[in-house]
Amino acid sequence: MRNELLELDARILAAASVVGKKEREGPLGEKFDLCDPDGRFGRKTWEGAESEMQRLAFNTVLAKAGMRDTDVGALFAGDLLNQCVGSAYGLLDFDVPYFGLYGACSTCAEGLLLASAMVSSGLLDCCGTVTSSHYCSAERQYRTPIEYGSQRPPTAQWTATAAGAFLVQKNQRSATPRAVIRRGLPGKVIEKGVNDANNMGAAMAPAALDTLLRFFSATGTRPLDYGRIFTGDLGHEGGKLLCELMALEDYADFADVYDDCGRMIYFKTEQDVHSGGSGCGCSAAVLAAEILPSLLRRNGPSRVLFLSTGAMMSPDSIKQGQNIPAVAHLLEIVAE
Amino acid sequence: MRNELLELDARILAAASVVGKKEREGPLGEKFDLCDPDGRFGRKTWEGAESEMQRLAFNTVLAKAGMRDTDVGALFAGDLLNQCVGSAYGLLDFDVPYFGLYGACSTCAEGLLLASAMVSSGLLDCCGTVTSSHYCSAERQYRTPIEYGSQRPPTAQWTATAAGAFLVQKNQRSATPRAVIRRGLPGKVIEKGVNDANNMGAAMAPAALDTLLRFFSATGTRPLDYGRIFTGDLGHEGGKLLCELMALEDYADFADVYDDCGRMIYFKTEQDVHSGGSGCGCSAAVLAAEILPSLLRRNGPSRVLFLSTGAMMSPDSIKQGQNIPAVAHLLEIVAE
Repeated sequence: MRNELLELDARILAAASVVGKKEREGPLGEKFDLCDPDGRFGRKTWEGAESEMQRLAFNTVLAKAGMRDTDVGALFAGDLLNQCVGSAYGLLDFDVPYFGLYGACSTCAEGLLLASAMVSSGLLDCCGTVTSSHYCSAERQYRTPIEYGSQRPPTAQWTATAAGAFLVQKNQRSATPRAVIRRGLPGKVIEKGVNDANNMGAAMAPAALDTLLRFFSATGTRPLDYGRIFTGDLGHEGGKLLCELMALEDYADFADVYDDCGRMIYFKTEQDVHSGGSGCGCSAAVLAAEILPSLLRRNGPSRVLFLSTGAMMSPDSIKQGQNIPAVAHLLEIVAE
Repeated sequence: MRNELLELDARILAAASVVGKKEREGPLGEKFDLCDPDGRFGRKTWEGAESEMQRLAFNTVLAKAGMRDTDVGALFAGDLLNQCVGSAYGLLDFDVPYFGLYGACSTCAEGLLLASAMVSSGLLDCCGTVTSSHYCSAERQYRTPIEYGSQRPPTAQWTATAAGAFLVQKNQRSATPRAVIRRGLPGKVIEKGVNDANNMGAAMAPAALDTLLRFFSATGTRPLDYGRIFTGDLGHEGGKLLCELMALEDYADFADVYDDCGRMIYFKTEQDVHSGGSGCGCSAAVLAAEILPSLLRRNGPSRVLFLSTGAMMSPDSIKQGQNIPAVAHLLEIVAE
């Protein structure tokens, strides 16, 4: 039997988040580091705005860690734009080796997993990851320009205008509690017949299920061994489906500790976001602003699972009648 | 000073290549494993054909290594299509954890570098990488549908219809010679003012220069310490520029050992390919079919450098007036 589970030991040195107006007005609003109320971040195009968010997120995480770009051995970065230009242009100014990723909304966990593997093994001293999404650049690329005002079905998710950045280093014991990535499990590409691009939660829930079942089987743990289990971003629809699928696999208690970054980032009714948030930046910003700080609070959970889930279709593959493949990467993060 | 150079020890277990008609008619034609003369690989769309090439390449490399998909701990895969659907759909049938990459034509070296890091560190036992490009799917996405018959300038490169797959494992000494990945250096995103999407060689040459200079500086080696040095794919134009740039840096001897996968895959004049081949599959197929076998021949080079270079722009970023950022990842491959 092959080994799939990665035994890691990567300390999260710092995390940073950058968001737009709608995310600032959500339940986690004040916890994000930076916000531009008009979402343009001083740039003339939405794609340029997304690049600027990546630049700001990486700058902020460097400042928080008291480091410079030349201290970072490699960056793992990605976004939703064609050819991942949000990352390539956004991080151009920095003097850091660059690994480009494409994992749709799973990119945050994918990047943290690879960055953690690089530092845990001692191959590099310090690595970073930056991911982003922007409502306006994503809408016109995946659906219709926002000026059309298209109506969205109840299962549709709202692409978050958000970016998150993280720095990890090989863990060293310290007196103050730290968030440490202890294990990682990369996801498989899973496709269960869903072809509705307005219901990505349903397409991604089976991928999250597959990764969770493999993780619990490989580690001999159960959901209640974790203070909280987060996905990002199945939204309200996909999160409900995941709980039902887990119950069918004899993990009915999963729902007791479960939440989803796409649900956490917006007020469901007041903010008119239908099934909740999505996008490479959504789970990254929620991890940086809410999940990691909660781990280090005295009364917070001391051990969590964090899964980023991605729907790997393109507008062309949908028009060609293909179903939606999805992937979910998992991290076990522990306060120690 | 940070460490950027990765000390690796990954044996290449097997390599496989799949190409179209034009590549079969080139100088390396008979060396590729599989070819479909009409380039459709039995599928109705060009995107489907590219996915099928990935599936065939991975199947072939598994067969060569005498392994099954369930023996492989993780796959690193990517292509040029929007949202990398060539890889996501092509590898869907396999039971393997999946890391999606986007590095444009640098993806082959990026994937091999990450796969080698995973097995060298012992985190996973065996990893694979699969990359592809298809002339027809790339032309209509990046330029114009092939039916238009657009005229191409002399500096333009021809996207190769090609896929390559590799399997790596932690090196173990053996009696028969093996190709072993000994060191790796990830590239930085470099942009030097080139904005002509029909001259990607010029945009990518400075990225290759940057990676080569850092590698020679970090290792204390010089070009003539290597039997051959390959880039993929700067083509004729970019390759010539790189030799000039290297000469300015006091490495005039670089040209004596240098070649480029985009030059090697086609007959320049007879095949009407202008500046040579490109695409995620070009350097992958040339590495699998020509470079690795030459390493293991008695009179071949015993130590080579292999760089994949990628131009990270999108059609939108070019229309928005942005310059072309590029990246080049390097591998040192040794016969031992």
